[in-house]
Amino acid sequence: MKDFLILLLLAPIVAIAQPGQTPYEQSRATEVYSPVPAYVAPGWQLGQPPADAVVLFDGTSMDHFESAKAETEGQASPWTLTDHGSMMVKPGAGDIRTKQGFQDVQLHLEWKSPIDTTGLEGQARANSGVFFQGLYEVQILDNYQNPTYTNGQAGSIYKQHVPLANPIRPPGEWNAYDILFTAPRFNADGSLKSPGYLTVLFNGVVVQHHAEIEGETVWIGAPKYTAHADKLPIKLQDHGNLVQYRNIWLREL
Amino acid sequence: MKDFLILLLLAPIVAIAQPGQTPYEQSRATEVYSPVPAYVAPGWQLGQPPADAVVLFDGTSMDHFESAKAETEGQASPWTLTDHGSMMVKPGAGDIRTKQGFQDVQLHLEWKSPIDTTGLEGQARANSGVFFQGLYEVQILDNYQNPTYTNGQAGSIYKQHVPLANPIRPPGEWNAYDILFTAPRFNADGSLKSPGYLTVLFNGVVVQHHAEIEGETVWIGAPKYTAHADKLPIKLQDHGNLVQYRNIWLREL
Amino acid sequence: MKDFLILLLLAPIVAIAQPGQTPYEQSRATEVYSPVPAYVAPGWQLGQPPADAVVLFDGTSMDHFESAKAETEGQASPWTLTDHGSMMVKPGAGDIRTKQGFQDVQLHLEWKSPIDTTGLEGQARANSGVFFQGLYEVQILDNYQNPTYTNGQAGSIYKQHVPLANPIRPPGEWNAYDILFTAPRFNADGSLKSPGYLTVLFNGVVVQHHAEIEGETVWIGAPKYTAHADKLPIKLQDHGNLVQYRNIWLREL
Amino acid sequence: MKDFLILLLLAPIVAIAQPGQTPYEQSRATEVYSPVPAYVAPGWQLGQPPADAVVLFDGTSMDHFESAKAETEGQASPWTLTDHGSMMVKPGAGDIRTKQGFQDVQLHLEWKSPIDTTGLEGQARANSGVFFQGLYEVQILDNYQNPTYTNGQAGSIYKQHVPLANPIRPPGEWNAYDILFTAPRFNADGSLKSPGYLTVLFNGVVVQHHAEIEGETVWIGAPKYTAHADKLPIKLQDHGNLVQYRNIWLREL
Repeated sequence: MKDFLILLLLAPIVAIAQPGQTPYEQSRATEVYSPVPAYVAPGWQLGQPPADAVVLFDGTSMDHFESAKAETEGQASPWTLTDHGSMMVKPGAGDIRTKQGFQDVQLHLEWKSPIDTTGLEGQARANSGVFFQGLYEVQILDNYQNPTYTNGQAGSIYKQHVPLANPIRPPGEWNAYDILFTAPRFNADGSLKSPGYLTVLFNGVVVQHHAEIEGETVWIGAPKYTAHADKLPIKLQDHGNLVQYRNIWLREL
Repeated sequence: MKDFLILLLLAPIVAIAQPGQTPYEQSRATEVYSPVPAYVAPGWQLGQPPADAVVLFDGTSMDHFESAKAETEGQASPWTLTDHGSMMVKPGAGDIRTKQGFQDVQLHLEWKSPIDTTGLEGQARANSGVFFQGLYEVQILDNYQNPTYTNGQAGSIYKQHVPLANPIRPPGEWNAYDILFTAPRFNADGSLKSPGYLTVLFNGVVVQHHAEIEGETVWIGAPKYTAHADKLPIKLQDHGNLVQYRNIWLREL
Repeated sequence: MKDFLILLLLAPIVAIAQPGQTPYEQSRATEVYSPVPAYVAPGWQLGQPPADAVVLFDGTSMDHFESAKAETEGQASPWTLTDHGSMMVKPGAGDIRTKQGFQDVQLHLEWKSPIDTTGLEGQARANSGVFFQGLYEVQILDNYQNPTYTNGQAGSIYKQHVPLANPIRPPGEWNAYDILFTAPRFNADGSLKSPGYLTVLFNGVVVQHHAEIEGETVWIGAPKYTAHADKLPIKLQDHGNLVQYRNIWLREL
Repeated sequence: MKDFLILLLLAPIVAIAQPGQTPYEQSRATEVYSPVPAYVAPGWQLGQPPADAVVLFDGTSMDHFESAKAETEGQASPWTLTDHGSMMVKPGAGDIRTKQGFQDVQLHLEWKSPIDTTGLEGQARANSGVFFQGLYEVQILDNYQNPTYTNGQAGSIYKQHVPLANPIRPPGEWNAYDILFTAPRFNADGSLKSPGYLTVLFNGVVVQHHAEIEGETVWIGAPKYTAHADKLPIKLQDHGNLVQYRNIWLREL
């Protein structure tokens, strides 16, 4: 979207100020008039979906999600719909993913760690994650008074970028992620054209600031890119903990 | 901040997996443990300042601001403190600026256009703006059912970048900006080392996505950079309209 | 609902503490176990509808309302559905009312006065109102820096009870009413058995505290009661001003 | 406050409509003009304190509270100030109370149950309470999927009135109480002149609707009234559980 805007912007600048013009006449040379950005009614409060959002989960149904586990792939989401407007990981049932595929998006989601974390620590405590295009993970973990490796804590791009701060709420309280994801682009020969980027606001605090994604998220070894389709489902991870999600919506960019 | 993290990240990757290791042992090679990101208690709701914020305006005092007008420079903010928790432009009194200087920041502010816009249109309607380092403007304007040149509408980087959408509220309602500003850097000889960048969420909707700033904001002609100090006040513009502001806070990045 | 609870409560009290009982045993005599109050998932934030609410207006449709004007009675709501999630009075089109009838309710609604009030003052400025059972009015009016008779200002029970405070927002901003309405009861012969009551929170501030309704709302003369059906529509008034409404829901008590 | 308003209201009604008057002239007979209710700037959002509130706890200090335990009475609040803007019961340290005394009030407070409730049930789970005038309790308890006697569950007037619904959030999430308390009045001889009343909104849902208080809260036996001073501290209970509080403010009525 940026490319054509730059073209439009350059054009009038070429129509440069002429001698004898008034300042007001000169100022018109750098005005751009089209295309006009679409009007989008925002939500009534920060965090609520704007009018053009794809609402993935509003508390009443998991219909926008399906199983991403090999054995049950494509079947209805096996996670638990709670009595209080959230959906909860069902340990062992596997990851879930959006039925629809997405490339660049602005995503809002809220999550909370389970209330009982007795005896659990580090990566074993409220571990989950959101994978853009099913491949690039922003980590979800209960890091309230629970240290772990910093590039694996909540708000990290898992094993790639440490978050800039740790603005987490205690277990049981809802956390909000507002994420801007720019997908990587690939050349026709499969080589990387441009890497992906992530900006993450965690409870309103910036923790990733246009961080460059280094490749697919991996647990072992160094990340690398492999060419893939443009639009792919967003995946939410079952890592064995009773993490809950609510208020999930996105806008395609 | 990013540079040293990358160094830290590279270091353990060099400590690469050895033959004979279990997967778990191998996974440890890419874990990073220090420094630990600071814990920051977030606000009780999105939009409220986190514990580490510099609160510039909480509705009770304009003490963090001063006059930026030549004749009264450095004197107490001449704008109007209202009876309902906001401060309002005093047309003719001039711009105001923060007493403190800032470089890279995350800024939250809320603004609304005056209720009486009878006979006003285009750039004459609720015009104001926030200038980072006093130089780089994110436009404030009432563009609810009020077209103007698109690179001068609310959410634009004035005369540089058209916003991606127009998620404005009607006159009289409060709008929120959440802005990530990366200041430009200059070389010792005054030449540009790296440009500035802006990411803007407008009522929760992304309207600028890591947009490259092309230079100082100008009304006429093409923007260009001139070297300046690192930390400079943030300026709010008096453009002659009764624009109101509230809930202004930032975090230095 | 209260009556049978009192019976339940009295019953165990009769089962009074016996000599020789431990304090814990004695304490059991005043415990009540049934019926169990229903679990109701609350909204995600204050002001949002709980799970058991009748949502009368969520910003997308006026289907829960119909015309209450003689000439068009029962036809589709003639008011204006805006582009930003509200519905607006259409001056001259007449009052609207809920299709469904209600008796005792807890009602939440939000309203705002029009932005252009040039030359308007007193009762002519953003006048509207919500009539419980179509008869008993809580006044809606723009009383921000706009005096009028106090028993006719925003938050009053019109011409019956002056509000305890004036916590109004300026024109153009959204105000919230949270109202508890107990309907009057009538004897078989049409005489009044018990009057109605209203408790009103206006932007979270109590302005009517169990105020006794003196009869049907009238503009001239003294209010009096006339027997009527139990469940009657709630009416919203067209008083000729462009008042807007949003986020309207109730729970039957 | 109601009495004098009624007098004011009656007075103009006596000035009754005269023959020959226009309807508009007649309507003036029931208008009231003084005193004018005070303007009160409301909080920016529901739940935030209005401008005239006494803010008892804003997350940063317990200075408005003191120990109410016999051994340490009047000393600094012994509860725990957390790192995330709340204060927490310190089991064994005893109840705390406001330094200031209050009679009729509108009170807002938020509370949450501890995250670890392993093995706890019924009254043993997140038990606390707010006592108006130190004597009349609105119960605080974790009743999410945790039954107990209904007149002792969250939102009850303890052992006097069962709540109308159970709009509780799960352990770890914040609950909000908005309470209207009318204190009892006593005659000069110590007999009861008028009982107290409570209206309670629990997460925005009405659970007590002008319920008549039957006397001082007691665990054993029937409640009864004993005359006491008008203004007395509000007490928060240490019942041995790690209940947390935040955002506590009131307005005197």
